[in-house]
This record gives sequence, structure tokens and C-alpha cells, in this order.
Amino acid sequence: MDIEIIAVGSEVLSGHTVNTNAAFLSRKLSSLGYAVSKHTTLPDDVEAIEAECRAAVDRVSLVIVTGGLGSTMDDLTKRAVDKLFDQQTLLKNTLGTASGVFYQGKSSVFLLPGVPREMEEMFVLEALPLIQKHFPLHSPSHRIGSHLCLLREVEVNPYLLDLKQQYPDVEIGIYPSQGSLFVEFSGFSEQKLKKMTQALQERFSTFFLGPYSAAQAVHRECIAQKKTLALAESCSGGAIAAALTAQPDASLYFLGSFVAYSNIWKQRFLEVSKSTLDTAGAVSLETVEQMVQGLFRETDADFAIAVSGILGPSGGSSQKPVGTVYLAIGERGQKIDIGRLKAPPDRASAIQWTVQTALGALWRRLVHGVFTFS
Amino acid sequence: MDIEIIAVGSEVLSGHTVNTNAAFLSRKLSSLGYAVSKHTTLPDDVEAIEAECRAAVDRVSLVIVTGGLGSTMDDLTKRAVDKLFDQQTLLKNTLGTASGVFYQGKSSVFLLPGVPREMEEMFVLEALPLIQKHFPLHSPSHRIGSHLCLLREVEVNPYLLDLKQQYPDVEIGIYPSQGSLFVEFSGFSEQKLKKMTQALQERFSTFFLGPYSAAQAVHRECIAQKKTLALAESCSGGAIAAALTAQPDASLYFLGSFVAYSNIWKQRFLEVSKSTLDTAGAVSLETVEQMVQGLFRETDADFAIAVSGILGPSGGSSQKPVGTVYLAIGERGQKIDIGRLKAPPDRASAIQWTVQTALGALWRRLVHGVFTFS
Repeated sequence: MDIEIIAVGSEVLSGHTVNTNAAFLSRKLSSLGYAVSKHTTLPDDVEAIEAECRAAVDRVSLVIVTGGLGSTMDDLTKRAVDKLFDQQTLLKNTLGTASGVFYQGKSSVFLLPGVPREMEEMFVLEALPLIQKHFPLHSPSHRIGSHLCLLREVEVNPYLLDLKQQYPDVEIGIYPSQGSLFVEFSGFSEQKLKKMTQALQERFSTFFLGPYSAAQAVHRECIAQKKTLALAESCSGGAIAAALTAQPDASLYFLGSFVAYSNIWKQRFLEVSKSTLDTAGAVSLETVEQMVQGLFRETDADFAIAVSGILGPSGGSSQKPVGTVYLAIGERGQKIDIGRLKAPPDRASAIQWTVQTALGALWRRLVHGVFTFS
Repeated sequence: MDIEIIAVGSEVLSGHTVNTNAAFLSRKLSSLGYAVSKHTTLPDDVEAIEAECRAAVDRVSLVIVTGGLGSTMDDLTKRAVDKLFDQQTLLKNTLGTASGVFYQGKSSVFLLPGVPREMEEMFVLEALPLIQKHFPLHSPSHRIGSHLCLLREVEVNPYLLDLKQQYPDVEIGIYPSQGSLFVEFSGFSEQKLKKMTQALQERFSTFFLGPYSAAQAVHRECIAQKKTLALAESCSGGAIAAALTAQPDASLYFLGSFVAYSNIWKQRFLEVSKSTLDTAGAVSLETVEQMVQGLFRETDADFAIAVSGILGPSGGSSQKPVGTVYLAIGERGQKIDIGRLKAPPDRASAIQWTVQTALGALWRRLVHGVFTFS
């Protein structure tokens, strides 16, 4: 059964708002085995909304529309879709004022709010139970997705092509992001998907995070092993700490981060020696090594990460071009694992890549005792 | 002239990837005065792509398609669109392998890569000059957007309704996000937009950031005033530091952040007294005050921000429910501005809100000498 998702909002068409609602709904629906065949975004215009909804209910049996309900605008979407149906049921909005609507006819349409939190809550509490009741999946398709840290698409793709030959009726998706990969198998035999996921895990065991992102995997593992973690971040500027503390209960293992952006902070709070900073430089193997040693001296942490790099656009040199990152992973009392790495050329990607690489390497050390860099 | 943007990618329809390409293209085009009338996302399916492109070129004179070009997939999009046109021009890809295509007929179509960096570079360097040449805007519409810190939609909306009455032919958009607002005026008379923007600035002067986000405004102001900044972050977990260091040259003013997530770090590195932590608690006026004092003692910073809160979902109490945040803004040698605030109920929004509120309040202090909370 195909589903179309329509977003109403001129703010999306002008680029001020990114349409994360469609991604949320697609993720939820596809994880349950429903297929989404189209996303559309329309302006705040009753005629455009009516025309598109009319076409969509001809194409598919279920349409979900977000936005254009109530608050500062009037009920554009409701006015448009009311024309297509005789029957409607209101849906409760537990977090806002605008009610949702469920229309039933030959095809069905849900209207949900545009504010992401309100939409998500209403979808899960009100719409999803109705979808599962009125559109039960008789032969549901299954999906199993797995995160792989530190690997690139070219390193995993040949193996996936082999798997595809063994399991031709299973769809394989590979979604690279900075410093990590997400691989997804989908098909009608859950058992096949499980076998393939197990095969993937065996092939890339020390990189295989399962259903968890690197930050989630580190979070779970530190809590399970009762290990504490401290960070010393220079070029990542607090982004590793932010990735960990985005998760509830990070305080169970995360002590804190010295975001030592200036050299004086590296000296004063992490006791990086002035001579190291003067000779080897702030972006050097010696500096990140001393940052980890400083963390172990100054705190009780069991594990430590230190990072320093040149993320540009300026500040590069021929010996240390933009993208040069030194990363150190330390376990108290053990040898420090230090690498000189090459981040992507643009600053935003480089920060994201540094976060994923640091957390992936820490996870491998925590779970598999592996040194990633040395 | 209306433009449609089509994204090809099953990974977007399954929710694994958020369609940021459409937002980027819309932002660029609308800032130049072009109007985007529709976004569509399609699966990796030649027939679906061909059908939608055929319909789109009937509706509008320019269609931009991203994704489905080259690399691990084959050239799905190109195969589909080739059928509609006799003439094509290849577009250079300076960052990847898949070329783009410009098709010219009664309507025109651009095919661009799906990888955001490659798409952005090709759009700016190759596609945009062709769009401006072949689709010049004879009476271009203008846009002026302004950020307002710390205000909510309900506080600004009545004034915008007044403005709308004075300038009925100017479109007004208001786009709230956590802890800030973006207001945009668009219309054909640039002079009117400038007048309205000036009126908005006069009405909300100490909240008016102009074209800059709070992080950009703080960044620019600290550099201009040659002031340095240090942070002590508890509940924001490094997110304020990350927002500042996302910008190149943050090292010109940003010294660093103590992400003191654990109480022991608050005591040890910021010298918050044990008795304060025991009696008033880590989330208290006294604690954030001592965190700022600690920063001024331990560093040379001219300005300091400290934040501590309960962002949940657990950890709340009747006196300090989830969402309670204490925020302190300090200037060396001056009285500290401290507030007890209420963040939104969900964790991700609360972190974002805390970052915007802290940076907005600091900017007001830096530029207008205003105490936001006390």
C-alpha cells in the first residue's frame, strides 16, 4: 500500500524551514512496513492544496497532510480538503490548539499540524492506531538497519553486492554520512534480513554498531561497563560533548569536556607544555597526547578523548593543510591511541566527521579493545 | 516565474535522509527574487521520474531535479529526462564524478547531483549563471529578513499586523524557532522593505539582530569590540560552544567552555562551593552565579555565560520541574544578570532554546548594555 505525504507551508518553499516532518513520518511508516511513494510541498494556497490532494487520493489510498492548520494562519488545509469528503473525525492535539482531522472515503486523508512536536505526538497517539486499524498490512515488509562506524561506502559496497547475489529479493540501501554509514535491508522474510544483518556484523564486527548511532552506542556501553568519560576538545568546539549530552542520562558516565579553544586554556587547564605548543604546535600528536594525560591527571575519568585540528577555511599550511585533525583515545593506565587524520574540506562536514570518528574509535576501544589509529 | 524542485531518492522517502537540498535551492532562489511553487520527492524509479518531470515542465518554465545521478546507482534521472528533450548541455562537477545536465526546450530542466556539497557547488557555479541569463527577472521581487532574539511570535505578531495595514502590498512572514524569530518582508519595492525593516528595528531595538543569527551576531560583536568570552555549561552540554565554534575565526574571541556536567567538575574547576551544591543544588541561582565568578577567577575572559538546568525527561521535582534553567550573563567587574527560566518540555528543543536564549541575552548586554533577566 502506497502513502503520499504532503506538507503545506510557504516557509518550506522559501527555504526558511526544512521539511523534517516528511522525514519523521516516512521513518515511522517505513519502519512498520508501509511504503511512502511521494513527498510534496505546497504553498499556503487553498486551490493548490485542493488540486494536489484530489490528485493524490486518486493515486493512493492514504494521504497525510501536515501544516496549514490554525494558529496565525486560518485553516487553509482544512478548507481545501473539506471539499473532497463528506465524513470527518477530529484528532486531539495534546500540545497545541489546532485539532487534526481524519477523512474517510474511497481513500483516506489525515491532516496534522505543521509544528513538529505537535505533529509527532498527534501522529503517534491518534493517527497511527487508525492507520493500523484501517490499513492492516497482510504481508508486511520488514526492515533492519545497522550503523557502521568509521567505514566509507567504497569499503562496504563490494560486500553488499555479494550479499545481494545471495539474497536477490532483499532490497539493500547504503546511506553514508560524515564518518559513518547506515545499511538497511528490507524485504518480506524477516529471517533473511536477520541472517544478512548477522553476516554484515561478522564481516565488519569491530565497526558494527547495530541499530545505534556512535553517540548512542558509546552512551549505552559506558553505562553498561560503568566507565566514565572526559573530553578535551579544541577543533570540535564542544560538538562531541553536545552529541553525548543530547541523550538523557548522559550524566551517568559523562563527566564533562574542556573545550580548550585557546592555547592558554590548553596550557592552563590541561597542562599542555608551552614548549610543545611553541615547537610542535597546537595541532600536533604531542599536544593531543598531553591533553589526554592532562585529563587523566585532573579528573577521575576512566576514558578520555582529545582532539585538535585545523578546520579552516583559513589557518592551513603545506605541512598541516586545512582538514588536518589529531585525535587521541585514552584509557587510564594504558597506551594512548593517536592518529593524524584528514577531515573533509568544509568546516561543517569536518566537525560532524570529527564527532563521528572520535566516538566510533572510542566505541571500538570500549567494546573490542581495538586501537583504531596506531 | 515559478520554479519546481524535484528530489530523486528512495532514502528521502524512507526517512533516512532529510531533503535539505530543496531548502538550499529555495533559499538561494527566493533570495534572488525567484518563486518556488512546489517541492516533490520521488523514488529511484525511471517511470515515476519521467511522469513527474513531464507534468512539471507543463506547469512551469523551470524545473530543478537533484539526485539519481551516477555513482553507486546508474543514471536514473538522466535516463528519464533524456526522453523529454532533444538538446542538452553537461555541467561540470568540481567535487565529484557525476556531471549535471541542462536541458533546454519550451521549458528548461537542470539535473544536479544528490550529494549536498556537490549539488550546492554546481548550482552556484554552473546553474545559477544560466538561470540568470535565460530567466532574467524583469520586475524582481525583493526580500529582507531579520532575526529577533528572545521574542515569541505572540509578542511581535500584533506589530506586524499593524505594519501590514500600512504596507498592504508587502508580504510578511514570521518564522519562530526555539528562542528566536525570523521576520521576512517581501515585495517589489525595495524601499518599502527597508522602511519596514527600520520600523521593526526601532520597535524592538534591543532584540533586533538584523540579518544575523544570535551566534553570528555575538561572533561579530565580540570581534568588533575586541572582547573575549568564556562559558561554563552544564545542561547545554557544549551546545553553546558548538554554536559559536561552527563559525570560522571563533578563536579571535572565544577562549573555551567548561562543560561541567558533573558536580565534581563544577566544584573542582569552577570552584562552586560544596555547601551551595548540597543546599541550593546544582540547578540554582547560586550555582550559576558561582560558575560565572569561577570563570572570571580562572580565566581572562571579559564576558562569561553560565547555565545549569533540568532538561529531562527525568530529574524534575515540584520546585524545579523539567525545563527549569538558570542562566547567568557576566561582564568582568559588573553585576551578574541571572534568570530562572522555563525551557520547552522536550530535551532537544530545550537545548536549542537554551543556546539561543543565552546568546541573545549576551548580545543584548554587549551591544545595548541591557540586563535581560534582572
